[in-house]
Amino acid sequence: MSERFQGKIAILGAGALGAYYGARLYESGHDVHFLMRSHYDAVKARGLKVTSCHGDFHIEPPVYKDVKEIGVCDLVIIGIKATQNDALPELLEHTVGPKTVVLTLQNGLGNEEVIEAVLKRLGHDNPGARITGGIAFLCSNAVGPGHIDHTAHGHIRLAEYSSDALERTHLLARSFEASKVGTEVFDSLLHIRWSKLVWNIPFNGLGVAAIQADTQVVLNSPPLMKTARRLMEETLAAAKSEGVEISDEFIEQMIHNTTSMGAYESSMQIDAAERRPLEVEAILGEPLRRAQRAGIDTPCLEFLYGIVKRANHLILENRND
Amino acid sequence: MSERFQGKIAILGAGALGAYYGARLYESGHDVHFLMRSHYDAVKARGLKVTSCHGDFHIEPPVYKDVKEIGVCDLVIIGIKATQNDALPELLEHTVGPKTVVLTLQNGLGNEEVIEAVLKRLGHDNPGARITGGIAFLCSNAVGPGHIDHTAHGHIRLAEYSSDALERTHLLARSFEASKVGTEVFDSLLHIRWSKLVWNIPFNGLGVAAIQADTQVVLNSPPLMKTARRLMEETLAAAKSEGVEISDEFIEQMIHNTTSMGAYESSMQIDAAERRPLEVEAILGEPLRRAQRAGIDTPCLEFLYGIVKRANHLILENRND
Repeated sequence: MSERFQGKIAILGAGALGAYYGARLYESGHDVHFLMRSHYDAVKARGLKVTSCHGDFHIEPPVYKDVKEIGVCDLVIIGIKATQNDALPELLEHTVGPKTVVLTLQNGLGNEEVIEAVLKRLGHDNPGARITGGIAFLCSNAVGPGHIDHTAHGHIRLAEYSSDALERTHLLARSFEASKVGTEVFDSLLHIRWSKLVWNIPFNGLGVAAIQADTQVVLNSPPLMKTARRLMEETLAAAKSEGVEISDEFIEQMIHNTTSMGAYESSMQIDAAERRPLEVEAILGEPLRRAQRAGIDTPCLEFLYGIVKRANHLILENRND
Repeated sequence: MSERFQGKIAILGAGALGAYYGARLYESGHDVHFLMRSHYDAVKARGLKVTSCHGDFHIEPPVYKDVKEIGVCDLVIIGIKATQNDALPELLEHTVGPKTVVLTLQNGLGNEEVIEAVLKRLGHDNPGARITGGIAFLCSNAVGPGHIDHTAHGHIRLAEYSSDALERTHLLARSFEASKVGTEVFDSLLHIRWSKLVWNIPFNGLGVAAIQADTQVVLNSPPLMKTARRLMEETLAAAKSEGVEISDEFIEQMIHNTTSMGAYESSMQIDAAERRPLEVEAILGEPLRRAQRAGIDTPCLEFLYGIVKRANHLILENRND
């Protein structure tokens, strides 16, 4: 049994999240190859700079503009946003071979299903068994060309998409652990994804729907706070319909944790402020559809989805100008 | 029995609504006195111009900047927005005498209660018996100084605040009818106010919450349309807790009517677009509080109130810059 993951790793979508984890893996000696768009020129010229609450560092890794040049890898880490999933067929066609593992660190529900369908269309057998899901608890930003700033947290939860945890899941975990990334391995991917949604649905959603509302704005408004609690209760009911039991105390714990966060701006709130496409389907639409298919009544989630979908429509409409 | 209302009439708050009805009453021979702010100079100089789908006209009525100069009237018609109710003590102190009737044409719930409390503080006996409530179905805009444009509808529903319809209610109705304003008299003010809210709560509220969403935007979005229907159902349940029975078919009728309206912008949507204070308490907050006091669960109304209250907060914050 090897200590850590051996083989060629691709980071597909090296934004603030992908670039941070890729850089950590590279720094600890892994063979990491970065697909970059906006940071390509800077990293090619001067390398990748990471300022981090866990220690600053600088690397000069192999970086690519064209995924074809990376070629087939042993591990592909998906760091693109769910809103860019239409790029997956091209990205996976050139990097996934007969034994490649795909780790998605994307938010929300439904990404593994999209990856599975893409792998199937590319002719891979038993594609679901290739996919590992990860949930990242990371505060990081691209603060300049080739410069990632990591301000807080950073741990990852890992689970397999179509089985309990495997030896490879633990292997990936050891690689992250060896790279200053705290990692926990779980047997149920649905459980960790739904658990994250208990926070993401209300605070990402209301961050947009309640007009650039950071966590403090929601906590300080009695009707918005009651709505946040309702959204959490609806999320628990929807999770339960997929066999995921989350306790009511988890809601209290999430609210308590949020109280200690100060005026925190969710990723969706920031995306809306910067007029970037919103992960509305992965974080709100897919959970809503699953609840509806199971006959679970989720009026507040439906309301929230309607508003954020409208906000996203206005953002996309403007980008096409 | 006189054919129509005899006596001195004040229009307090002669914006697009008050000025239109006041002008109609004046044109048909009533003794109408207008309190005006932004239109005062224009009307003083050149009179009030009304372009209307029911016929254009021009009048040169008595107009005032200072309510003290109007003095005590027989009928006071309240045309200010609920957001300006803090002006009521001054307005009513100078215009209400021992026999004055107060007709409020304001939107939503709670305005009669505020007027009653003001009259009581001013020392009037049995103040609730002075108050008649009216609901205006009017599309009119102030399109220039001293120029009101009336584009559609215009009928009024009248009822007494603290009794069944009285002879004076019918007298007021005949005065409006004689002024080209269709009028219906009802015995229950709560019934006509809640019935109007069945439309106003979803379409005024979502007009703001769903980001400048006209009726067509709501009708075309399945999640927003389902939310509108829920809001209507919650409104019916809240109305029922106040003894007002509205049938489920009324919801279908409202949706059907809305479908034929084209891309209609609600008054609250327009107020938000022009960064004016929103009637959030009269249209959303007071109905919500009444539902909560009666133990009626209205999650979508609470959600909507939270967002529109936040939108209003941002508008007020900006006005104080």
